[in-house]
Amino acid sequence: MSLANHFDLIATDGAARTGRLTTPHGMVRTPAFMPVGTAGAMKGIHWREVRDAGADIVLGNTYHLMLRPGAERIAALGGLQRFTGWNGPMLTDSGGFQVMSLSELRKVTENAVTFRSHLDGAKVELSPERSIEVQRLLGSDIAMQMDECVRLPAERADIERAMQLSLRWAERSKRAFESAPPGYMLFGIAQGGDVPELRHASARGLVEIGFHGYAIGGLAVGEPQAVMLAMIEEVAPILPEGRPRYLMGVGTPEDILEAVARGIDMFDCVMPTRNGRHGVAFTRFGQVNLRNARHADDPRPLDEESEWPSTRDCARAYLHHLVKSGETLGAMLLSEINVAYYQRLMQDIRDAIARGTFEEFRQRTRADWARGDIAPR
Amino acid sequence: MSLANHFDLIATDGAARTGRLTTPHGMVRTPAFMPVGTAGAMKGIHWREVRDAGADIVLGNTYHLMLRPGAERIAALGGLQRFTGWNGPMLTDSGGFQVMSLSELRKVTENAVTFRSHLDGAKVELSPERSIEVQRLLGSDIAMQMDECVRLPAERADIERAMQLSLRWAERSKRAFESAPPGYMLFGIAQGGDVPELRHASARGLVEIGFHGYAIGGLAVGEPQAVMLAMIEEVAPILPEGRPRYLMGVGTPEDILEAVARGIDMFDCVMPTRNGRHGVAFTRFGQVNLRNARHADDPRPLDEESEWPSTRDCARAYLHHLVKSGETLGAMLLSEINVAYYQRLMQDIRDAIARGTFEEFRQRTRADWARGDIAPR
Repeated sequence: MSLANHFDLIATDGAARTGRLTTPHGMVRTPAFMPVGTAGAMKGIHWREVRDAGADIVLGNTYHLMLRPGAERIAALGGLQRFTGWNGPMLTDSGGFQVMSLSELRKVTENAVTFRSHLDGAKVELSPERSIEVQRLLGSDIAMQMDECVRLPAERADIERAMQLSLRWAERSKRAFESAPPGYMLFGIAQGGDVPELRHASARGLVEIGFHGYAIGGLAVGEPQAVMLAMIEEVAPILPEGRPRYLMGVGTPEDILEAVARGIDMFDCVMPTRNGRHGVAFTRFGQVNLRNARHADDPRPLDEESEWPSTRDCARAYLHHLVKSGETLGAMLLSEINVAYYQRLMQDIRDAIARGTFEEFRQRTRADWARGDIAPR
Repeated sequence: MSLANHFDLIATDGAARTGRLTTPHGMVRTPAFMPVGTAGAMKGIHWREVRDAGADIVLGNTYHLMLRPGAERIAALGGLQRFTGWNGPMLTDSGGFQVMSLSELRKVTENAVTFRSHLDGAKVELSPERSIEVQRLLGSDIAMQMDECVRLPAERADIERAMQLSLRWAERSKRAFESAPPGYMLFGIAQGGDVPELRHASARGLVEIGFHGYAIGGLAVGEPQAVMLAMIEEVAPILPEGRPRYLMGVGTPEDILEAVARGIDMFDCVMPTRNGRHGVAFTRFGQVNLRNARHADDPRPLDEESEWPSTRDCARAYLHHLVKSGETLGAMLLSEINVAYYQRLMQDIRDAIARGTFEEFRQRTRADWARGDIAPR
């Protein structure tokens, strides 16, 4: 496979970077946050709203899509972008992580993972080669190597075994990706849990193999934030400066801000939509739980200075009522509000790095979050 | 109360009419279909989409809103339009119908209905006066008198008793509405089940009392379509030509077309959103069940000639996948597609009446529905 670089660094500010990643389906401004459209849909949000919110790229889950509606079917329908109507850049994970967390009776061998579908119990085998084949069938702009992710805390021996297996799978993934047309990208995934030396070995091994970009996996799986940030600090310096760096499954706005400060370019997380479904809004002044009775009579919006219409215009009392009543519209509005908040944060981060004022922005943003929500009336 | 008329007939074509109803929150083009926003929200649709789809007016349910979040609370928050952000014309029912269908331990007396809330079991009394008070607190542009609706088939004696009670409640409702500011409207409701003489007596009684508009209630409650249409034919000629006529709780596109042909101006129904949640789309060529496996590999949209983006652009295979996967987006898209279809139908009906080609339009539309969906590929 060609290792042509599609990433352009525009500016750096300390370890923070802003750039552009060019994919077959369009441009991605980094640092980028990818909302998660698990089974070919964002939960409670129209694609047009995801676009309006400022997202350049979204993430699809290989595990879900290969089981339903099926990778070959999506390929016959023109690929995931055409199938869903999203029509923009899309990254797919390898499927490995969900096999571990969702399926039953899984068996990991050197060759592949065998598991039973959580939908119908059918026995399915997922090898690094099949994972790449599925991701190619889906038509994702950025494919991820298959890896094994260990939940923390874990024994060092287990972490090391999974890390070494992931490295061997990285090589096989790259070979399987050889036939991909130019412009499509494959990212390797650094594992190694919370053990610095294993993280180093993993990152060095990946760089030796060579990928279009590099992910840090196996974090935000139960460890404290400090451990996550420490591991980023171990890995980032080993990765080639000119290639995009993706911190998988992260995270809160605080996590993102701190990871950007340590050189990360890409993120994904279900948090904006999941928290939205549970009645929680992300705002400039931290998280706001709309279930709280303090909002029942409050005509004020979540943030009157927001540029996102629902954030600026919807009364807290209305959102509270919708959430308490279990109305779909409540989840829809809060999911959209949260995705828009995350995208606004990313835009502000990019602007601050470009202007060389990232550290100032970071301090001010943390202070705003710490200030907390406006006082009740 | 002032009986100033806010309805302007623009054109008639046979018994079909098109006109304009001016409310404090804006203009309603008739024949009008009111999507139902039960508890202050349309299920699965943003208000901006309801507006974009072409709806001028929506319906809110007094029963739900008085129980949660409460009429006094909504009034303190500036009324239902401001609370929800819909900001357009709104009609509210009296609450009586839902008391009968949703609550427990209800007791109907001459004075009021007493019931237990389906939410928390609290004992609530709803009289015609309280119903009007609640609707005034909500700030609805068009309030409905409280009535008693009898499910068909029913004994003539039961139908007559409920009809007479509804007439007495109509008088009390009108008195209670005296203090409403100019521009706000109150509609009476004709009852009488499937008995022509009782329908006549009810309509004549209402006209004698005098309302801004007249509804026909107690239909689409289990009787055949032919009976419903026959009852419209009994009642419509008795109603004043210059006042709007509203057929409550109706219905399918076929019901609407036939009722318009018999002089009805307004409709409401949960069908577009409810059927959408169940995977069924309304189209020019009849209803389409997206759960059906025939759509699984079909890249074609529901109707490539539709002007509504989701109807024209979403692949059937995608809608099928969303519905089968239980993704919220499936219900959202189909609800929006259906509301848009209903509104397009109403616009076409209005245009045909204005051009004097309603009968031709009716025949063509029925033929299209009868043709059925496009053939599978």
